[in-house]
Amino acid sequence: MSSPLTRSQPFDDPGLVAARAALVRDLRRILPADAILADEEAVRPYECDGLSAYRQTPLLVVLPRTIDEVRLILRHCHDRGVPVVARGAGTGLSGGALPAADGVLLSLARFNRILALDPVNRTARVQPGVRNLAISEAARPYGLYYAPDPSSQIACTIGGNVAENSGGVHCLKYGLTVHNVLAAQVLTIDGELLEFGGAALDAPGYDLLALFIGSEGLLGIVVEVTVKLLPMPERAQALLAAYDDVELAARAVGDIIAAGFIPAGLEMMDRLAIQAAEDFVHAGYPTNAAAILLCELDGTNEEVSEQVAQIRPLLLAGGATEVRTARDEAERLRFWQGRKAAFPAVGRLAPDYYCMDGTIPRHRLPEVLRRTAELAEIYGLRVANVFHAGDGNMHPLILFDANQPGELARTEELGGLILELCVAVGGTITGEHGVGIEKIQQMCVQFTAAELDQFQAVKQAFDPLGLLNPGKGIPTPRRCSEYRQLPTRRPDDAAPPQSLDRP
Amino acid sequence: MSSPLTRSQPFDDPGLVAARAALVRDLRRILPADAILADEEAVRPYECDGLSAYRQTPLLVVLPRTIDEVRLILRHCHDRGVPVVARGAGTGLSGGALPAADGVLLSLARFNRILALDPVNRTARVQPGVRNLAISEAARPYGLYYAPDPSSQIACTIGGNVAENSGGVHCLKYGLTVHNVLAAQVLTIDGELLEFGGAALDAPGYDLLALFIGSEGLLGIVVEVTVKLLPMPERAQALLAAYDDVELAARAVGDIIAAGFIPAGLEMMDRLAIQAAEDFVHAGYPTNAAAILLCELDGTNEEVSEQVAQIRPLLLAGGATEVRTARDEAERLRFWQGRKAAFPAVGRLAPDYYCMDGTIPRHRLPEVLRRTAELAEIYGLRVANVFHAGDGNMHPLILFDANQPGELARTEELGGLILELCVAVGGTITGEHGVGIEKIQQMCVQFTAAELDQFQAVKQAFDPLGLLNPGKGIPTPRRCSEYRQLPTRRPDDAAPPQSLDRP
Repeated sequence: MSSPLTRSQPFDDPGLVAARAALVRDLRRILPADAILADEEAVRPYECDGLSAYRQTPLLVVLPRTIDEVRLILRHCHDRGVPVVARGAGTGLSGGALPAADGVLLSLARFNRILALDPVNRTARVQPGVRNLAISEAARPYGLYYAPDPSSQIACTIGGNVAENSGGVHCLKYGLTVHNVLAAQVLTIDGELLEFGGAALDAPGYDLLALFIGSEGLLGIVVEVTVKLLPMPERAQALLAAYDDVELAARAVGDIIAAGFIPAGLEMMDRLAIQAAEDFVHAGYPTNAAAILLCELDGTNEEVSEQVAQIRPLLLAGGATEVRTARDEAERLRFWQGRKAAFPAVGRLAPDYYCMDGTIPRHRLPEVLRRTAELAEIYGLRVANVFHAGDGNMHPLILFDANQPGELARTEELGGLILELCVAVGGTITGEHGVGIEKIQQMCVQFTAAELDQFQAVKQAFDPLGLLNPGKGIPTPRRCSEYRQLPTRRPDDAAPPQSLDRP
Repeated sequence: MSSPLTRSQPFDDPGLVAARAALVRDLRRILPADAILADEEAVRPYECDGLSAYRQTPLLVVLPRTIDEVRLILRHCHDRGVPVVARGAGTGLSGGALPAADGVLLSLARFNRILALDPVNRTARVQPGVRNLAISEAARPYGLYYAPDPSSQIACTIGGNVAENSGGVHCLKYGLTVHNVLAAQVLTIDGELLEFGGAALDAPGYDLLALFIGSEGLLGIVVEVTVKLLPMPERAQALLAAYDDVELAARAVGDIIAAGFIPAGLEMMDRLAIQAAEDFVHAGYPTNAAAILLCELDGTNEEVSEQVAQIRPLLLAGGATEVRTARDEAERLRFWQGRKAAFPAVGRLAPDYYCMDGTIPRHRLPEVLRRTAELAEIYGLRVANVFHAGDGNMHPLILFDANQPGELARTEELGGLILELCVAVGGTITGEHGVGIEKIQQMCVQFTAAELDQFQAVKQAFDPLGLLNPGKGIPTPRRCSEYRQLPTRRPDDAAPPQSLDRP
């Protein structure tokens, strides 16, 4: 969060005012009046996404209704060298939809129609502004649903999911967005409509569909998405296991997977997260536990019964102090309610919180937890831990108070160290939230200069002028060399960085 | 198969002889003597892959042993502008490993070690020249296996599988190569080593791993692959259903999927394929049937029993004249033996055969079969049909005699029409064999000019000089405009092309 972009440019900067006036004049020729927002009050809601520590008003906001309107906007921006940042619902957590001060914020909010739902082939063709949950709601009458379920699924859109390759609590078994999208139509920055993927398992040519998914709006604008629908499982059941040692809980995750089970969800929360969730939604969690595991099993009635019967003793043998089986659907939903409310629940414990997102190999979970706790202690900050433990996707939540001088900077630094710790144990700096503006410096740790060069070359192949979502996702070589020259702050160092504001 | 490349250049062409001598001299400085083959007799085995209608001797063959050797070869070729074609086992069916007359054929045969097998995390790290089946053999003691199983799995290598995004009879349930590879190390044409993917479900940056898989050696050379291993299912059972109408068999495929089953394999063979396979391996197939379906179910014992009990009546209700359940493991394997031997079995029926590979939406199977039969009739050629029916991947086998004047050309034309028929019904020109040299013209039908331009731009981002596997995979705009100017031969035309040599 120490990017130059945090020094946001004011909306009424004279240069921006002149550029805005010229652009509004041009766009009025190709768009209806209600598709352009250029007043400070009107654009203010678009100044940030879910990572609200970064804010920037855009030059203006456009709200097109048709592919042709998007094409005209892109062509115009391309011809005039105006940056374009696409936005779905703005629920992203890595600042991927942070506007450019001198650019257009392209909202896909009006692309909100489900175009076709084919229950026989189990697909839905939707516009990018359709909400994730709306797809499952439309599919429910046919006994189908769309599997990826980010916590924000009530609000987030499928276009945003494609941009971030979103996951959710069920992605351990059902995969990320990339595993559940069959095809997409995209517009390039120069207004060409391309179609990638299709109904078939394989497609000729390069796999540009997979390349687009997770590309964070840097390669083009997704204007239509075809998703796979899955049959709703006959039954789901959840187990809740309590531990008085967080490392035992972490080991149990490995035990379950090693025994050959792939739960529909396998989530872990530590004491701080448990207590916060319990205070907030009264899920019935054991508040004296150091950690809990939530393990959901789905499938046919028989399969689920058999798996519950096998996993219960395995959890007890692994040191669980208690293993509960949800006694009915209401209790199962209550188990999940606590987990799903964990972020806002933890958010009530401090004025601000910062949600990290990294992945690690599952078997390194115990040591990463230990080291995270040590780092939190050194930095004098509280960290609550909520994980998609089954796939090693950690969400440490750092509690802080942005009004205390230096505390935001300390939080950023601790967050950066946690991400680099993920890389050091063979993991990655993002599980499902993307890089955006937030983790662009850690990309320099994750990848070699040659790999970053290759990313830049791919970007060039789609957007040679660098107009799409500038400054996000992929750092420039200059940015990385500057970052690498900062005082060393790698997690392997025994001591914290000298510049650190110790508590 | 009407590409200019079929006019192969002779090995002793004076220009090539001189270029060869110079290149050998240079490469001897960086490679051991036994890593360079430059005699006509020694390079002859590399002149084609499984699509033997195309043949071309390379300038020379290199057989490096280490990543450093590959790097030196690539750097040298890059600096001198020499084309490079990579080759695994040469079992590919689309001519993807056809050498360039003026280029190096880079064999990865000596990269044949399994570097690590991690039974806890269920991964194997292997060199690209490791055979597909060798991975499963090495994993068997741990109760694990590698899922994608091309018919050539005894011989084909994982590097070739990555290049072609290979599937197999089990890919309906377990996915293609792209769904089973976790990470890869690749060398770019200028000798940079890049690493893509990792143990985590998601990775930051663009998904270059997915981009590489199926890129047919056009973007770089894969030098290490990490694959996912799966637990061997407790039990597998196969059903064999016979039909006296091929369209009923095609409909049954849709019925099974629509009822919510995802069989481990769902294969279909028509009368000609059945009879050929039966004559060849005595699988016990009903030779009077117009079509058979093979439906394999795997999982726990209970799951399999339940599915067999449900699918059997469904097949009978759909018009099967007979449904057999393999009475023991030996019979199950015999069912599959017939299917796996179908290509060589059909090959015994005529001097030559040409194996096509296209995919279609499952529900279009009946009409595509009907139209294929009509086209075969018009062209006076016999076509046997073998399908991965569950995922709509067709393998029509055209029987012909290359020694009969015009018959190869007629076969090529019929094959092209079948592929374009696939595109016309919403399918693709390849299911798992890749485009290679074989289908490069049909790429012009599959994709728009803008899409092909984007592919070329991606190619440029990796290989600006166009040295990697030139002339394969992605057609140049010129090639497409030439192809589009040919007399119309689209499948929607009622009449066959006028130039057609009618029987």
